[in-house]
Amino acid sequence: MNGAEVLLRTLIANGVDTCFMNPGTSEMQFVAALDRVPEMRGVLCLFEGVCAGAADGFARMTGRPAATLLHLGPGLANGLANFHNARKARSAVVNIVGEHSTEHLRYDAPLTADVAAFAQPVSGWVRTLESAERMGEAACECVGAARSAPGQVATLIIPADHSWNAGGALGGRADVAARSVPDVRQARSLLGPATGLLLSGSALSEEALAWAWRISEATGTRVFANRYAGRIRRGRGVFGVPRVAYFPEPAEEMLAGLKDLILVEAEAPVSFFGYPNRRSTLAPLDCRMHVLAKQDEDGAGALAVLAAEFADASVPTLAAASLPQDGALTLETMGQTIAALLPRDAIVCDEMVSSAEPVNAWLGTAAAHDLLPVTGGSIGQGLPVAVGAAVACPGRKVIALEADGSGMYTLQALWTMARERLNVVVVIFANRRYRILDVEMKRTGAAVIGPRAEEMVDIGRPEIDWVRMAEGLGVRAVAARTAGEFSSAFAEACGRPGPCLIEAILAPASASER
Amino acid sequence: MNGAEVLLRTLIANGVDTCFMNPGTSEMQFVAALDRVPEMRGVLCLFEGVCAGAADGFARMTGRPAATLLHLGPGLANGLANFHNARKARSAVVNIVGEHSTEHLRYDAPLTADVAAFAQPVSGWVRTLESAERMGEAACECVGAARSAPGQVATLIIPADHSWNAGGALGGRADVAARSVPDVRQARSLLGPATGLLLSGSALSEEALAWAWRISEATGTRVFANRYAGRIRRGRGVFGVPRVAYFPEPAEEMLAGLKDLILVEAEAPVSFFGYPNRRSTLAPLDCRMHVLAKQDEDGAGALAVLAAEFADASVPTLAAASLPQDGALTLETMGQTIAALLPRDAIVCDEMVSSAEPVNAWLGTAAAHDLLPVTGGSIGQGLPVAVGAAVACPGRKVIALEADGSGMYTLQALWTMARERLNVVVVIFANRRYRILDVEMKRTGAAVIGPRAEEMVDIGRPEIDWVRMAEGLGVRAVAARTAGEFSSAFAEACGRPGPCLIEAILAPASASER
Repeated sequence: MNGAEVLLRTLIANGVDTCFMNPGTSEMQFVAALDRVPEMRGVLCLFEGVCAGAADGFARMTGRPAATLLHLGPGLANGLANFHNARKARSAVVNIVGEHSTEHLRYDAPLTADVAAFAQPVSGWVRTLESAERMGEAACECVGAARSAPGQVATLIIPADHSWNAGGALGGRADVAARSVPDVRQARSLLGPATGLLLSGSALSEEALAWAWRISEATGTRVFANRYAGRIRRGRGVFGVPRVAYFPEPAEEMLAGLKDLILVEAEAPVSFFGYPNRRSTLAPLDCRMHVLAKQDEDGAGALAVLAAEFADASVPTLAAASLPQDGALTLETMGQTIAALLPRDAIVCDEMVSSAEPVNAWLGTAAAHDLLPVTGGSIGQGLPVAVGAAVACPGRKVIALEADGSGMYTLQALWTMARERLNVVVVIFANRRYRILDVEMKRTGAAVIGPRAEEMVDIGRPEIDWVRMAEGLGVRAVAARTAGEFSSAFAEACGRPGPCLIEAILAPASASER
Repeated sequence: MNGAEVLLRTLIANGVDTCFMNPGTSEMQFVAALDRVPEMRGVLCLFEGVCAGAADGFARMTGRPAATLLHLGPGLANGLANFHNARKARSAVVNIVGEHSTEHLRYDAPLTADVAAFAQPVSGWVRTLESAERMGEAACECVGAARSAPGQVATLIIPADHSWNAGGALGGRADVAARSVPDVRQARSLLGPATGLLLSGSALSEEALAWAWRISEATGTRVFANRYAGRIRRGRGVFGVPRVAYFPEPAEEMLAGLKDLILVEAEAPVSFFGYPNRRSTLAPLDCRMHVLAKQDEDGAGALAVLAAEFADASVPTLAAASLPQDGALTLETMGQTIAALLPRDAIVCDEMVSSAEPVNAWLGTAAAHDLLPVTGGSIGQGLPVAVGAAVACPGRKVIALEADGSGMYTLQALWTMARERLNVVVVIFANRRYRILDVEMKRTGAAVIGPRAEEMVDIGRPEIDWVRMAEGLGVRAVAARTAGEFSSAFAEACGRPGPCLIEAILAPASASER
């Protein structure tokens, strides 16, 4: 059994059964071994950023790692932006990167690069395999590292000769320590109306949110969600925890009055960017920070313990949205439509950027669903994460809400959706601008925006035709220009299996609000 | 004058007048400053890999750096694969990366990453700007580093506050040392039929090749080109130097019998990949290596000195190819057609991968042109390099010969071609496979390729419709299925201004040769 087969068998023994791949010469033995290890599902992506984002989406939905298989330093480099997002989402990923054979490495062949240096900034664990015999042990260690709480990218770099040579013993099963429930006494003493609970990680499941609701109802404690958590349960019947706002002014307003903020698998909140003459922290200056659960502890369990002493309180159910009247296609009408029609237990991938606020406000009234938010802010996350979520949860509908600017970074994901017949409805918010930059340009102090700067924000010349592009990649697609067209298209897309893209061409009034 | 404006003015003073950009919040001051420094041309790209590859193509054609403007660590990460190619091409690039403001950096905001760590493996020079006052001096140093022979990627990381604060004095003009002509005495003593000259860098210009021809004619010395050089002059009237082959067996055959190999801005030749039971070096084991010119020396000048003592010898002119008969569209008929119709002084960007060999054989008979080969092997180079070459040389026709698999990595380049109305003819070699991997899989010892491995090489399910995708990105496009259709389409595309894409759907006989 060669090293490549040992790797695949060890991964399977550890429950890693899905590999998002864009292989090259150095990874051919792994590809060949797929026929000997049929338990491993290979999902081909046409760009490495899709592999990385898909593994992130898979981990967010299953809590366990998928593998990625990438080709040398440059292949890894193309995955780094979405690995950055996976890192911030605390997603477990088993990242396998092929390397030149040991003998070949000493020559500066064209593809030679410092693979470990590329991997380091996004990985919690990096190892270059020393010999074929150690493959099994290294693969086991890699899975263990990926799964160590709260989850991280673990990168195993494998010189090609270690995959084609005889591979030694299979690796065992990785030990993964259970998360411990932290002591809640200090937090209990702080509960009250001048105290906040900031939730992230496991504390944003439906069950954990119910406990948070009970605590809040009984004590008046205010509850917030980390805006950039990997996954948030939301919708009717779920405690609708406000997410800390993107811009610092509304975020400060949300947190105003807090004397104590209790962090549950969360970090103290900071603004996304720094701006001239503004501080980066968001809580009041005199607000004390307390850690109830660290990232690797069981925050949900801690909430359960805290909640146990209070009376049960059922979460009030919001009224469902009705479909809007036909009319102009605005963010409001889109949000209302999506909220009204969202299938039960859908998975919503949000990379709407400047379009997000009104749509997310409506989605609080939708059927209960999982929201997969932006985590690390690397653009090009939405479509790949949708691929991974759909592979992870074939019985659920994935809704990828995507801005036209950000969708362009990793549009190759559409092809994998078509190839794997994934149940993804992609909605492109086509405002033909990097609209978020209109706002950010002013905020960073560039008061006068001239015509040449304006050009660098205008992505409408030429107009991108998402319908043609999706069709070119094998995905059924339709454009919508009115609220009525959008609601028909969205209802139809949700009712059919397989992928579909809707290019929502926003009314100029809505698109040019700035 | 704020730091951003000082940067732009210092770059302009140093002859850096083109910036390929994909900016975000931290770079807004640079974008705003475009209206105050109209000498700087901003070229917007919808993915950072396009910016990096375009700067590479620009440098290869002009010998001077363009700037890139990228957003934080993840934006840089998306450019790394093509910066790797630029590094191997020895292209000068002034790579400007925005960073969080100094105050904001201490918080682990979502987009915080180790920018310098990402930059290091591809950059010859990296500096994080210390203060706004030092902007001018740092920008000058950055240009000097980029232009230091033979050329490299120089990365200047700029915290956002240093761009919005007052910027101090403008930077001066960077000192760039002239390349020196090395001593040729030892090389002269080696010339003869058992000696080879391996040329790269400046030694592959038309003039340098004429000198090499003269040396070869007079002494019998054999001449070869580094396959992965940044730019090679080629075609009728140019000495057709054989490029060292991709696979080690034919490469060894080419170099067989050499007792001495003289390196002119080149490294000793090695194979692209290592394979089981094969050495990586390509020259005979007893062949001695000699350096005539190091990478930072004047190899062309050295050839001129060597050639001076021999009689002038004009390069024999090959007969031009005629158009093939109509019939099946094969690599042979495509190569013949492109060779017959290639406009004079065209720029040919080659990322044909498995389709390259027969086409390049024909192109030796085409009108004289510049070939921009694959350098570092990071896939996704061809279309972005074509963007940069076309921006650099608006009066010349750029022909991007692109495999369908590799074109998918950076297809966003098509949009910039449309937006800037660049004179690029893109030819997609559509064989619907990662066909090179058919060969590589066998070579790495994976003898039996099963159906599940086969799937990871098959990119024809679903079929990618390049015509629709190009149209979706604003580029006129047409499909060709026969030799006649291809020759009409290619002639028409070469005759018109602006970009055009031809999807050449290869006959199955040709596509499935493996």
